[in-house]
Amino acid sequence: MIKEYREAIAVTPLGGGAYSAQITEGWAIGGNVFGGYLAALIGNAISHDLAELGHPHPYAVSAYFLSPSAPGEAIIRVERMRLGKGTSTVEARLFQTVDGVEVERGRVLATFGDLAAMKGDTVISSTPPEMPPIEDCVLTALAPDELKQYINIFDRFQMRLDPTVKGPVGGKPTNKPYAQGWFQHNDGSPSDPISLLATADILPPITIDFGQMGWVPTLELTVYVRAIPAPGPIRVRHECRTYAGGFLEEDCVMYDSEDRLVAQSRQLALAPRPV
Amino acid sequence: MIKEYREAIAVTPLGGGAYSAQITEGWAIGGNVFGGYLAALIGNAISHDLAELGHPHPYAVSAYFLSPSAPGEAIIRVERMRLGKGTSTVEARLFQTVDGVEVERGRVLATFGDLAAMKGDTVISSTPPEMPPIEDCVLTALAPDELKQYINIFDRFQMRLDPTVKGPVGGKPTNKPYAQGWFQHNDGSPSDPISLLATADILPPITIDFGQMGWVPTLELTVYVRAIPAPGPIRVRHECRTYAGGFLEEDCVMYDSEDRLVAQSRQLALAPRPV
Repeated sequence: MIKEYREAIAVTPLGGGAYSAQITEGWAIGGNVFGGYLAALIGNAISHDLAELGHPHPYAVSAYFLSPSAPGEAIIRVERMRLGKGTSTVEARLFQTVDGVEVERGRVLATFGDLAAMKGDTVISSTPPEMPPIEDCVLTALAPDELKQYINIFDRFQMRLDPTVKGPVGGKPTNKPYAQGWFQHNDGSPSDPISLLATADILPPITIDFGQMGWVPTLELTVYVRAIPAPGPIRVRHECRTYAGGFLEEDCVMYDSEDRLVAQSRQLALAPRPV
Repeated sequence: MIKEYREAIAVTPLGGGAYSAQITEGWAIGGNVFGGYLAALIGNAISHDLAELGHPHPYAVSAYFLSPSAPGEAIIRVERMRLGKGTSTVEARLFQTVDGVEVERGRVLATFGDLAAMKGDTVISSTPPEMPPIEDCVLTALAPDELKQYINIFDRFQMRLDPTVKGPVGGKPTNKPYAQGWFQHNDGSPSDPISLLATADILPPITIDFGQMGWVPTLELTVYVRAIPAPGPIRVRHECRTYAGGFLEEDCVMYDSEDRLVAQSRQLALAPRPV
């Protein structure tokens, strides 16, 4: 059964820092559960765990993926490593049971705090990337069915892509090392510090715009959440600086409707595995 | 006793994935051991651990610092999480014993492999930042003594800074959100994939060039090593995009003498604590 964002990341506390969750259908790329969804799911478990300490928001989250997750039951175990006044640091591990044995799917180190309590002047600030207005951007849900069968998550978001980068929605590859667009949740959920962990991984890999189809496995993903987003769509852009030797990185920035940088992320990924 | 780079990062295997090390004097900023040194020390222990599996080189290393390290004995414990054909993923934890109790200083997730075995075309490549020639750059060891007493590591490297950013070597702050320069080891060690983990954190924080002195605690540091550096100095540049609400990030790129991006990193840090 497909669930939309808010229900898909729901967790149930089991006590002792353990949380159960259901990885739902429809959140996959080439049969592999989308890493951004897993990051938001794990982040949601950590947020539940640290809310009582006044640290519900991710400041920094680093995720290493160990084996492909599958739809179905999952357990997240949160270990509190350092509890501070302003921030707490944890480790969180995602498990699924296969043939009676718990298999680790991914491990996360993270520092959480309270973004609403941040204090300090704005000394340096950046400006959002230029992109076409939302009404001129192309909804990923309108991509051809053969692409959406492979990239299920195109149906999970109101993600509107800059049409000058055509590859991801079925056009001719334009060999541009970036992708960008406007992001909103399907189920009307406002973007929040946890959902930005998913948005950080939402854009189609730049490899598609180089005519290379296939699953691009993320080795590592680190997200910094810098502010609580204002209501409205998030402008998201990622860019690759170096794609060589079978590896590429994607650097991502996210801006809210008030032009603030609300999150930034980077991932190291492997060149596409052929479909 | 002060030891230079190669000796400073030496580790001794104790068996079972444990390694002993001596954190040496002279590697501090405001009394706190420099995070880049700790990253290279931990990276060296991981490299020793995975060498027998053919994975001696860091691809991605994410470090979370938990408590300030001090010169003296340290133990690094490496847990192998996933052993693959091309890469292996580990967790490594740094401990020091205080009053008979082991205290965790930092925890790292990392994926290692063999950078010499990487295969694949160069699809996207970036160019090094423009900076003055090495002979026009200012050796950090020439900074005023009162600054070097605080920033001990200025004496630990042949780090030559672009003089247009004057703050770090005692000039008038020029309010530039970046720093850059040419890096070499003091002891003549060539740069290698492990030493790039230290180089990623070597530039003085951009806050100095905004007239803000003080320790800038790193919450999280992730480094991607992309290639084995060619002999010669490393050009290193970091830049801050957003410094607001008491937090800043620094994005760092490292290029070798053949103009290749050999490593990139990002860290999230707290605004300076007054000296």
